[in-house]
Amino acid sequence: MENRQPQSATLLIYCEDRSGIIAAVTDFIHAHEGNIIYLDQYVDAEEKIFFMRIEWDLQTFVISPDKIETLFKEGLAKKYKMNYRLSFSDEKLRMAVFVSKLPHCLYDIVSRCQSGEWTIDIPLIISNHKELEPVAKSFGIDYHYIPITPENKSEQEAKQVELLKRNNTDFIVLARYMQILSGDFIKNYPSQIINIHHSFLPAFPGAKPYHSAHKRGVKIIGATSHYVTADLDEGPIIEQDVVRVTHVDSIKDLIRKGRDLEKIVLSRAIYAHFQRKTLVYKNRTIVFN
Amino acid sequence: MENRQPQSATLLIYCEDRSGIIAAVTDFIHAHEGNIIYLDQYVDAEEKIFFMRIEWDLQTFVISPDKIETLFKEGLAKKYKMNYRLSFSDEKLRMAVFVSKLPHCLYDIVSRCQSGEWTIDIPLIISNHKELEPVAKSFGIDYHYIPITPENKSEQEAKQVELLKRNNTDFIVLARYMQILSGDFIKNYPSQIINIHHSFLPAFPGAKPYHSAHKRGVKIIGATSHYVTADLDEGPIIEQDVVRVTHVDSIKDLIRKGRDLEKIVLSRAIYAHFQRKTLVYKNRTIVFN
Amino acid sequence: MENRQPQSATLLIYCEDRSGIIAAVTDFIHAHEGNIIYLDQYVDAEEKIFFMRIEWDLQTFVISPDKIETLFKEGLAKKYKMNYRLSFSDEKLRMAVFVSKLPHCLYDIVSRCQSGEWTIDIPLIISNHKELEPVAKSFGIDYHYIPITPENKSEQEAKQVELLKRNNTDFIVLARYMQILSGDFIKNYPSQIINIHHSFLPAFPGAKPYHSAHKRGVKIIGATSHYVTADLDEGPIIEQDVVRVTHVDSIKDLIRKGRDLEKIVLSRAIYAHFQRKTLVYKNRTIVFN
Amino acid sequence: MENRQPQSATLLIYCEDRSGIIAAVTDFIHAHEGNIIYLDQYVDAEEKIFFMRIEWDLQTFVISPDKIETLFKEGLAKKYKMNYRLSFSDEKLRMAVFVSKLPHCLYDIVSRCQSGEWTIDIPLIISNHKELEPVAKSFGIDYHYIPITPENKSEQEAKQVELLKRNNTDFIVLARYMQILSGDFIKNYPSQIINIHHSFLPAFPGAKPYHSAHKRGVKIIGATSHYVTADLDEGPIIEQDVVRVTHVDSIKDLIRKGRDLEKIVLSRAIYAHFQRKTLVYKNRTIVFN
Repeated sequence: MENRQPQSATLLIYCEDRSGIIAAVTDFIHAHEGNIIYLDQYVDAEEKIFFMRIEWDLQTFVISPDKIETLFKEGLAKKYKMNYRLSFSDEKLRMAVFVSKLPHCLYDIVSRCQSGEWTIDIPLIISNHKELEPVAKSFGIDYHYIPITPENKSEQEAKQVELLKRNNTDFIVLARYMQILSGDFIKNYPSQIINIHHSFLPAFPGAKPYHSAHKRGVKIIGATSHYVTADLDEGPIIEQDVVRVTHVDSIKDLIRKGRDLEKIVLSRAIYAHFQRKTLVYKNRTIVFN
Repeated sequence: MENRQPQSATLLIYCEDRSGIIAAVTDFIHAHEGNIIYLDQYVDAEEKIFFMRIEWDLQTFVISPDKIETLFKEGLAKKYKMNYRLSFSDEKLRMAVFVSKLPHCLYDIVSRCQSGEWTIDIPLIISNHKELEPVAKSFGIDYHYIPITPENKSEQEAKQVELLKRNNTDFIVLARYMQILSGDFIKNYPSQIINIHHSFLPAFPGAKPYHSAHKRGVKIIGATSHYVTADLDEGPIIEQDVVRVTHVDSIKDLIRKGRDLEKIVLSRAIYAHFQRKTLVYKNRTIVFN
Repeated sequence: MENRQPQSATLLIYCEDRSGIIAAVTDFIHAHEGNIIYLDQYVDAEEKIFFMRIEWDLQTFVISPDKIETLFKEGLAKKYKMNYRLSFSDEKLRMAVFVSKLPHCLYDIVSRCQSGEWTIDIPLIISNHKELEPVAKSFGIDYHYIPITPENKSEQEAKQVELLKRNNTDFIVLARYMQILSGDFIKNYPSQIINIHHSFLPAFPGAKPYHSAHKRGVKIIGATSHYVTADLDEGPIIEQDVVRVTHVDSIKDLIRKGRDLEKIVLSRAIYAHFQRKTLVYKNRTIVFN
Repeated sequence: MENRQPQSATLLIYCEDRSGIIAAVTDFIHAHEGNIIYLDQYVDAEEKIFFMRIEWDLQTFVISPDKIETLFKEGLAKKYKMNYRLSFSDEKLRMAVFVSKLPHCLYDIVSRCQSGEWTIDIPLIISNHKELEPVAKSFGIDYHYIPITPENKSEQEAKQVELLKRNNTDFIVLARYMQILSGDFIKNYPSQIINIHHSFLPAFPGAKPYHSAHKRGVKIIGATSHYVTADLDEGPIIEQDVVRVTHVDSIKDLIRKGRDLEKIVLSRAIYAHFQRKTLVYKNRTIVFN
């Protein structure tokens, strides 16, 4: 990290709420000639937990990037018993994408990366089906076909984890991946696996939500992006959105309208995640602006 | 009905789908010099049911208003085994409002009637609490305080029904009425009782949906207006809408934001109902445009 | 102010952006045993202006409410050349409402006040027409009929201002008031007059926006609430919202759908204003969360 | 067309409104054993114009597909002086895409075609820049680089038209194409050129709408898809949508949020067009459901 010159540093913090934390953190940056370019904080009044996201310019900051963590850890983090995550503007996260047969979310994700809209890398795509290999190919991304059966599941998941580790994967996106990940798998990536569910959770969890929505006669359908936990479709919600439907819309129409929702909701969640705008506390997310 | 001169007539129809129904109905109107001013139809392809709403100008129509029903009944309705409802533009529906302690929906509803925005009458307000009597008074509407306990429920409901009948009530609106109506009560007004539930159904049915929504950490909250059936919060949905929330919003904020949603969603449902734009079939609504 | 015990104090601040302001303000509160319950800040990077809203609990704060302003003024405000506004949670703003003939916004506003949803007072309603006097009456609010003609305008506006001052009016809401206020009038209440315009500004400024929207064939209509400045429909926007329309919607339908928009958009703007969540800088608003 | 077996036929019709048109058209289909699977109609009461979209099953229809047009033309179309367009479910439209440097709309469009979500062909992409050639390549679509200067414009447009004709192009999509088409060019494709403008028209027409939106301080931004006419940004609107922004959003944020809007709005407009759901009359569109 010797010659590294990131433009800015970002701290995501949470800890028990106490008077004076904001003053202490802003003082720390100010005292070392840093200029705050973003600050947002939030106190969960019920849980008495303080959450903060702060970003500051490193141009004039007198502590070198590789020393910041140690200093912060030994100083404020210790004093206030903070959970924190420090990141720098020149770090490029590595994202693995899991897919099955539906291509729309995958196209949307890889297009955003290839066009430079998103500054993240996609080292690999993993699938339990072969259908989307041509898409991966045309975008020049490695595609790993790893079929899953009840019998081979734990073995195949081990293979997946091995691949992910070898590729230094930071986080995983399930882009309409039609397999349930085991608790063991999930433990490897806590709050680092993002799923898109094609309903307005907690309405219509599980399989075939559009069919259920049609049957119930709802006037609005939704999509939900959330971090994956061991409880299916119960993880902390990152983003949701909805679209109007009417009695005229068949299940096929719901699927068509929902597809566009899924793309946009998943993409917004991924964006918030790699911009380090999300914090998870007790099954809820704080998504900074 | 001798001297009656309604401007237009409206037919709401549903029946088994067969070829030629639209032609037959439009022919019926055309052949008697009526001019169609609205036509919308929908076929439920799965159930093979045909639904239609048609409105025509009566100025040049050669059948007099009081003869239309008989003619239609003996002719097309018989031939196609139609369920239908005929109404005229000069009919003013009579709506009863049930409330408990929360005033926001009530204010919205009575304001719309008093200002002439809605052409319906509110002969009476019924409540299990006394709190909103002053509101009813200031708008000059009869207020009936009918407290409900588990013990007196069936007796009090009988009293309510008697009041409703005596006031020639066409339909009932539960404007945040915090009592569950019995199946016996509901049978008196099939598809004529409109409720507002303060969640995006089927998510968070039952009590305290804002608390549940906050706990689950959803990013959008909703409100749902539906016809009341014997299954609590399971009736056919008329209208839904949503509003964004964030981690910053406390339960109090959800309640505040939700209040505005409840008002607008309930009002849209009432409007669709008294404009005869709704049809119910097998727990789903057709809401014509 | 001797015996006054407000629960919290709120500071709205803006000044030239300099390093260390957040630390200084949070230190000021922290050093005097105050507990921050809300903090939001924003830097306009282009204009290099710092904006902040901070609220703190006064229970343990060692400076008495009536001394805070002097101390802050002489200390931080002077040092950083701050524009600021200090308010306390027990202050109840006084709002005048101007109307013409359309009642929907007026009903919505007075209902919210009468029901206790909003903690503001409405000492008076002013109108250039007599139509809405009964509404004012039924809510027990003084109604002043002040007709305006080109000839008597300045004279009548002087009368309005006199009435407003005598009633200690803090801010004014134009609830579909169909008269243009003169620059002279506006000068009395800078950033304290809130208007609702029935279009998605800057589209369709001026008269008859629904007619223009219909003619242009837009697929969405809107409403805009803004602070009134000398330039008609050009003042800083506080809130906007929209609703879908289709080719089917006549001008009458746009007016009907728009009415609901106007109510909600105006009410959200009023809420943000009396909660001291708004700041104006160079014809744009900062609306804190 | 001998062996052709389309599943259904669709008629888009408009003509002067007269009593009996619906009956006549539905009779025509019914009398020849066709089964109506979609009917929507609309009367512009002011202009006294009747619009209709009707689709019917051809399985049992006794007139062969290649004879329908002649019969309809000589019969009903003549009688009622109808403008009409007949199409069959097995026709696949051919769409040309014009782009400049921004890739997001292009990616979205070609992904939808390649994945089979849309049943249209893209024979060619035309651009005044070279930047997006690799995207076209990776999707296997011909890319024609045709730079435009004030001097060579009419010559280059002639070349474009020649290419379009040679490729049997049915309609054209301007996917953030940063060149104004001449009136001469447009005449070749009346109501067949779809543009996406990155604002909520009629607000912010012309160049740099996000900069203007930021300057004006709007709280919502939009995107508009419309048919191209000789008047810049004045053509009939097909679809619009919006997204919320706040004071916090910089111009860069507006561009980012707007990108997603542009994609979805343009895609919805293209879908409505190739599904033959749009009709244009006097600078407004009828977009059937």
